[in-house]
Amino acid sequence: MSDLQARLLDEILAIRAIDCHSHVPAESPHARTLADLLGYHYYTELAHSAGMPANAVHPHISDADLITEMVSRAGTFDNTVQYGWLMEAARDLFAFRAERLTINNWAELGQMVVEAAKQKDRYRAVLAKANIEKVFLTNRFDEDLSAVDRGVFVPCLRTDDLVFQLADPDLRGRLAAKTGIEITSTDDVRDAVRWLMRYFTQHGAASVAISLPPDFTPAEPDETAAGKALARVLRGKDLSDDESRHLAVFVFDILADACRRFRKPFQLMIGAVRNVYPAGVEGGRDLVSTRGSLIQYADLFRRYPQVDFTISVLSLAWAHELATFAWIFPNVKPSGHWWYLNMPVHIEQELRARLMAVPKVKLIGYYSDMYKVEFALPKFNMYRRVLARILARDFVETGLMSEQQAVETATLLLRDNPKRIFGV
Amino acid sequence: MSDLQARLLDEILAIRAIDCHSHVPAESPHARTLADLLGYHYYTELAHSAGMPANAVHPHISDADLITEMVSRAGTFDNTVQYGWLMEAARDLFAFRAERLTINNWAELGQMVVEAAKQKDRYRAVLAKANIEKVFLTNRFDEDLSAVDRGVFVPCLRTDDLVFQLADPDLRGRLAAKTGIEITSTDDVRDAVRWLMRYFTQHGAASVAISLPPDFTPAEPDETAAGKALARVLRGKDLSDDESRHLAVFVFDILADACRRFRKPFQLMIGAVRNVYPAGVEGGRDLVSTRGSLIQYADLFRRYPQVDFTISVLSLAWAHELATFAWIFPNVKPSGHWWYLNMPVHIEQELRARLMAVPKVKLIGYYSDMYKVEFALPKFNMYRRVLARILARDFVETGLMSEQQAVETATLLLRDNPKRIFGV
Amino acid sequence: MSDLQARLLDEILAIRAIDCHSHVPAESPHARTLADLLGYHYYTELAHSAGMPANAVHPHISDADLITEMVSRAGTFDNTVQYGWLMEAARDLFAFRAERLTINNWAELGQMVVEAAKQKDRYRAVLAKANIEKVFLTNRFDEDLSAVDRGVFVPCLRTDDLVFQLADPDLRGRLAAKTGIEITSTDDVRDAVRWLMRYFTQHGAASVAISLPPDFTPAEPDETAAGKALARVLRGKDLSDDESRHLAVFVFDILADACRRFRKPFQLMIGAVRNVYPAGVEGGRDLVSTRGSLIQYADLFRRYPQVDFTISVLSLAWAHELATFAWIFPNVKPSGHWWYLNMPVHIEQELRARLMAVPKVKLIGYYSDMYKVEFALPKFNMYRRVLARILARDFVETGLMSEQQAVETATLLLRDNPKRIFGV
Repeated sequence: MSDLQARLLDEILAIRAIDCHSHVPAESPHARTLADLLGYHYYTELAHSAGMPANAVHPHISDADLITEMVSRAGTFDNTVQYGWLMEAARDLFAFRAERLTINNWAELGQMVVEAAKQKDRYRAVLAKANIEKVFLTNRFDEDLSAVDRGVFVPCLRTDDLVFQLADPDLRGRLAAKTGIEITSTDDVRDAVRWLMRYFTQHGAASVAISLPPDFTPAEPDETAAGKALARVLRGKDLSDDESRHLAVFVFDILADACRRFRKPFQLMIGAVRNVYPAGVEGGRDLVSTRGSLIQYADLFRRYPQVDFTISVLSLAWAHELATFAWIFPNVKPSGHWWYLNMPVHIEQELRARLMAVPKVKLIGYYSDMYKVEFALPKFNMYRRVLARILARDFVETGLMSEQQAVETATLLLRDNPKRIFGV
Repeated sequence: MSDLQARLLDEILAIRAIDCHSHVPAESPHARTLADLLGYHYYTELAHSAGMPANAVHPHISDADLITEMVSRAGTFDNTVQYGWLMEAARDLFAFRAERLTINNWAELGQMVVEAAKQKDRYRAVLAKANIEKVFLTNRFDEDLSAVDRGVFVPCLRTDDLVFQLADPDLRGRLAAKTGIEITSTDDVRDAVRWLMRYFTQHGAASVAISLPPDFTPAEPDETAAGKALARVLRGKDLSDDESRHLAVFVFDILADACRRFRKPFQLMIGAVRNVYPAGVEGGRDLVSTRGSLIQYADLFRRYPQVDFTISVLSLAWAHELATFAWIFPNVKPSGHWWYLNMPVHIEQELRARLMAVPKVKLIGYYSDMYKVEFALPKFNMYRRVLARILARDFVETGLMSEQQAVETATLLLRDNPKRIFGV
Repeated sequence: MSDLQARLLDEILAIRAIDCHSHVPAESPHARTLADLLGYHYYTELAHSAGMPANAVHPHISDADLITEMVSRAGTFDNTVQYGWLMEAARDLFAFRAERLTINNWAELGQMVVEAAKQKDRYRAVLAKANIEKVFLTNRFDEDLSAVDRGVFVPCLRTDDLVFQLADPDLRGRLAAKTGIEITSTDDVRDAVRWLMRYFTQHGAASVAISLPPDFTPAEPDETAAGKALARVLRGKDLSDDESRHLAVFVFDILADACRRFRKPFQLMIGAVRNVYPAGVEGGRDLVSTRGSLIQYADLFRRYPQVDFTISVLSLAWAHELATFAWIFPNVKPSGHWWYLNMPVHIEQELRARLMAVPKVKLIGYYSDMYKVEFALPKFNMYRRVLARILARDFVETGLMSEQQAVETATLLLRDNPKRIFGV
């Protein structure tokens, strides 16, 4: 590492970041046992990929069994960056000193996790250590937000189920229970969504989020067709693919319109193909496809110029499109590096392209996507290192930026842009 | 930068380059005011992308207003390589010393541009400074070529409108006015195209150029179907998509055949999706798509083995295909790095792949695509730096080339290949 | 090169590798004249791409004519990594000292090749110098395997023709001659495939291999439809595209099932579009397409969890998918870097992604795909150098691995994984 890169990294590590997307459960944000760390789908799916039976980490397995199983398997995937996250968290958050986690030393780390979990507001200490000021949650629409610690957490309305599962009577039941609105018409859907937006906004929510399959194509909805589909659903009928699509496109558009009305960004996470491998471990069944194109969203971007769409894609094949769409459309803001692209080799490619051609005030650098706050530190540090290297090599060394401008740019990506765009 | 890389860069900067694609207007090749530089679509679209209303740079806006608007916005996109081009041009061509362009210092640069513009044949001095020997133009078919300064400029017949807008009576009127041929049949199209080819060839034109959407698929034309479509057009009827396609495929093929007859390369620039964002600034409304494949052109390459197709693609998704097609098809020659791929991160990937697997005598290194000659210097310098780095790291340091062979290869890419392939 | 990288490279060069895919002919594994090296399709297709008429290297051309033709053309493509392979083989295997092969010095190398070819078991010496322990062959189904030198070579059943050319009576004749089974029904196909699997297994075969076009989609076969297609074939009728597809999908599935029964990995090489350029030189007519997706194979991976699919893709567009599928599916093992991706720029991208996110025990590092054993050395050395650089920069320098762990990982990729996965 050059001196320049080291100085930039020091400055970048000192930026108090905003983490605009996570799956941290507000009621249990930090790990209580080592199983909360080793049970992260990255580890269980890698262990399974390398030969562990999926049922060895079945949800009914005890923490103790899961830990010993996973530790005994860790040697098969200790090359991965995900394993690197675990060891960096262990070292920096629990003062664990071994270089590898083994069947002989895990008990020590396990004890440290249990002890640390007892500290009051442990999650706040963990986030402080990671130098993160705020962490966005991804809340179910009927979650009770009153107990969220809004000093560090920011609610966010997750809408996958509203868009894709409105035909499910249980979902409509939950929706009615939460909002008091029985869904009998497309107007009811509109009302229920607005009710939710009011509730979430009142509780400090900063955005709406959804993950989308690569073949989804938003469009001006055909409300008549959507209404017919809904009527069939209410009569207990199954929907054809076409009818399902009409309904999903309608609800999606209602959400985009609600974002416009409530002035909230819409986080679009595009490209997950769900349940490609049903025999996999929980959380390790979805995949990516080169199919599709961001062109499918051009109509949406045109119809909602007032809505900020903060966008992540899952396929490397879409990365160039995302950078160019963000370059042209004012309301397209590239956001972080998602899941199957969340490793240095891909972050590097995406980030270089974005920094070279997208206005710096539009870039949301990174989010953790984590389920427990312990992963904020290694994930953000991974990103901070890549960012320091790129700013050094591609910008300061080439004369495009001074060292100070590089730090200012990093501050925009990690902190100022998400604060401004999400209004936190 | 290593000593080796620095030495290579010195040698590469000394190569007198050929710029085989630009949009420089022959009658006004250099900037007369700062608005000619700041009005480049790269800057207006980036400013708009970062929040500037599109009408702030409406064509009717005065130069003074455009300049102050743009300067006040520049801080939103001063991270980009495009901004870097501006500052490098300002420094090297106008001796502007500030590191950033601000509301406090732009007047000085503005004055310098106005002063410099008064120099006799200013554009020649600018190109000499950029070490460029010839710059290709992209001329409308009915442009008067007699006044072109053929000491530095090389005409080139642009054919987008002939292929895609023959149904437009205005276009056919302009065609008749230029060639004396009223289009009443497919044979008239053929005759008009050959008339244009003769005219352009007589005036020193070195190639035919066209930009194509990603879904265009050349094919052996169905002249009967094209004739029927043309007959409908002449009766004032609208064409179906299918009829439009038959007509476009026919005209495109006529052009390929004319390239064969007149022994001119056909510059294909593939992948622009037009007017995806109609509310954008002028020149900033088109985008890219991962869709499509160079396979669509295989039939064309097979049918015209005598025609050199010099090809640029707009989507990174097509870059690997282009390198492999150039590796296999003798008549496919990769050319430069176009528009949304014209930045170091993508140039690097495309160029490394081409240099590693395509015969060096087939590679056209770079072209500026510029609208004013001032951008030749920073754009070509950007390319020269990437080229020096790649030749140093991937070829000389690995023992694949000696230092002298690296310089010879660079000379082929920047000068000798375009001279030979285009016959200039 | 850093000291670390140099040390890692030394260790990696010392790993005795397994080459799990080649086209070496068992009866003539090493070059007997320089024409055996210069006639490699990489050189003839590059020379043709740069202007040499295809018939200058027609199979009927004498070795002497081919050599002088090719040597006189070599200066057009001496930038390529393929040319680099030739010169490294010439230097390290034949002690040829010149830096370039010219019309003035080729005779010396030609003489060296002829002399060396006379050594007893020359191919064993060549492979020892390359530090390769075993080389897999790709055998026609009716090849006589009894004479294969199983001390260094491992047979492998090539199945392209069985899947895609069963309609050819010559092929069915060869199949009957080999197995004694006349194909009259789908059951006969099943029996013939199993007969071949027994024969190949008895002769030490370690896998089944096939190359597939990008649009092929395996599926649960419709044996009735396949049977009808076969019946048409047997009556001498041509098949529709749909019928051909049913038959191919059926035979492919029979092979996958045979791999399951005989516990052999199935080498899938996905993405070659055949005969795109029929006027090209032999071996230089196929190309690549961005089209298609590995999603097409998800059903296959689900239905055969017991079969190891070792997979290479031909298009860079599929590389990210392959790494993610290998990350999730236990039976998907990425294998090497094939053909149009077999150069440092692409190996680097694929390898970094695989090493960062796929369990190390699943990665098959490299195979030569060579036709003569002389190319094992430069091809594997190219890979070893990329591997050393990536392990140094992305893993050891970043703290993800110790130096020793990096060497252990390299040993898995080059040796231990192919040995375990293929059972050799």
